[in-house]
Amino acid sequence: MWLKRVMIIPLLLAAAQAAAPPAHSGPPRTPTELIAAAPASAWREIPADDLMVIELKGGGLVIVQLAPAFAPVHVANIKALARASYWDGAAIYRVQDNYVAQWGNNESEKPFPAGVVANPPAEYHRSLAGLQVRELPYRDGYEPKAGYALGWPMAYDPQAGTANLVHCYATVGVGRGLTDTGSGGELYAIIGNAPRQLDRNIAIVGRVVEGIERLSSLPRGTEALGFYKERSMDVPIASVRLASQLPPAQQPRFEYMDTAGATFGDYVRLRANRKDDFYIRPAGGVEICNAPVPVRRKPGGERG
Amino acid sequence: MWLKRVMIIPLLLAAAQAAAPPAHSGPPRTPTELIAAAPASAWREIPADDLMVIELKGGGLVIVQLAPAFAPVHVANIKALARASYWDGAAIYRVQDNYVAQWGNNESEKPFPAGVVANPPAEYHRSLAGLQVRELPYRDGYEPKAGYALGWPMAYDPQAGTANLVHCYATVGVGRGLTDTGSGGELYAIIGNAPRQLDRNIAIVGRVVEGIERLSSLPRGTEALGFYKERSMDVPIASVRLASQLPPAQQPRFEYMDTAGATFGDYVRLRANRKDDFYIRPAGGVEICNAPVPVRRKPGGERG
Repeated sequence: MWLKRVMIIPLLLAAAQAAAPPAHSGPPRTPTELIAAAPASAWREIPADDLMVIELKGGGLVIVQLAPAFAPVHVANIKALARASYWDGAAIYRVQDNYVAQWGNNESEKPFPAGVVANPPAEYHRSLAGLQVRELPYRDGYEPKAGYALGWPMAYDPQAGTANLVHCYATVGVGRGLTDTGSGGELYAIIGNAPRQLDRNIAIVGRVVEGIERLSSLPRGTEALGFYKERSMDVPIASVRLASQLPPAQQPRFEYMDTAGATFGDYVRLRANRKDDFYIRPAGGVEICNAPVPVRRKPGGERG
Repeated sequence: MWLKRVMIIPLLLAAAQAAAPPAHSGPPRTPTELIAAAPASAWREIPADDLMVIELKGGGLVIVQLAPAFAPVHVANIKALARASYWDGAAIYRVQDNYVAQWGNNESEKPFPAGVVANPPAEYHRSLAGLQVRELPYRDGYEPKAGYALGWPMAYDPQAGTANLVHCYATVGVGRGLTDTGSGGELYAIIGNAPRQLDRNIAIVGRVVEGIERLSSLPRGTEALGFYKERSMDVPIASVRLASQLPPAQQPRFEYMDTAGATFGDYVRLRANRKDDFYIRPAGGVEICNAPVPVRRKPGGERG
């Protein structure tokens, strides 16, 4: 009686799972089908230098795509820290339910390597100029406009001429204190409902493209703000490297769907108008964080 | 250097943590301060018959507030199932990242006790008539209007005269197959970004008011849709009871903030306009799922 496999149709996560090709003829009816059927030309490879590979000591990878076009100084800091092995022996020390997992060297005051800008500018938004924007054709709850550029979800203000990345599930940002802008040494990933109130208040530097579930399923910290009570509860990080530092054969390869392309436009429309065997009433709209840019391992495997 | 305790101000969860009273004079500056300072008259107790207490075999409670005003037949089913101990020995058998945790008796086809309606009506929305609605004074991404009534977040359509509960973090709904409406035997809770596309496509019956982190931190299932691969991976449930079935001294007591009251109006405005020691740029708006109704253990403890 219980049709186990059809109860509740799945959300497509940013790191799209390999999906079976459509079993029916005709155009794709679901985002999953559309992604599976998307032509190679709909995808853009992520540069190896923009992929940060976090290896947990207990096993497993968390892979982050960095966004140098939106927070260049913070991202340059993060790359310098990765190249200097700054996070070898670091840990995840804060996991707050429906909010963030946070990692770094915490209160150790480990010195930064040369080349790290200690006090970066407040890269909380950038100029809208130079961005080819695909406007989200539906209502979003925040700021004048929402849309996509360069493969990223963002909000923007045509009057002010500014654009900013947005806090969605799996977004990665830079921890900061009350009066500074954060250097990049302490990072967080969103593991709950999109906390859009943080937009334009903190530097966003990327998104988790693989392994977010390794962060979101961690035990929650019981101290205020989700900090672990004892350092023994910290989740140790073995190493953090840019993919470009790895031997070519070991470099993970990812691609995102070109947000300027026609396929992506179809994808957003499908996200907003689910109507298939399960869905009876299409929503007729979708908030920006509920239509994440598809990202996947590049078919064909590793480099080299 | 790292101001550990001030990095990223926390979201207030539905089950508000006990908060220290404001350390400053003047009106509350944050939702946390406002909740801590709210007068007793701002709160409404949840009837014991609307609280469902799920005890996990490994220890720990997950407590659900049921919403009989929105899905009366489904909720009556759920209450009948709890009273008949239908879920003793049930399990959580599906955990899909950024989506749902689902529990019940899965494919066992355990027979229902007398009084359970096998095929309830499609309680995916109700009449707007009779609801005292507080409209969300900000833009939301879905349906004509968003607001609150009877302590619940909802969307509504004044033209059609309908209202429906919405899929936010910790919302509880009824698993169903492709063509039925679900009986209430298999339930799910949202553990990720609000999947609003499910609204009006499935029966929502309540929300987790305590222990959602016991679901959201579970290992993710590796099968399609997040089902656990082996039954040995299931997370066993010891028992499910209504609070009203427990001895008075053991009944948990909860209260929610009256969504028709002035305090709640202040709360929503503060959620939309964070401006304090940390926040520099208030969002100026908030989506309905990002302003959850505060729910807490009733101060003064257990009954009896």
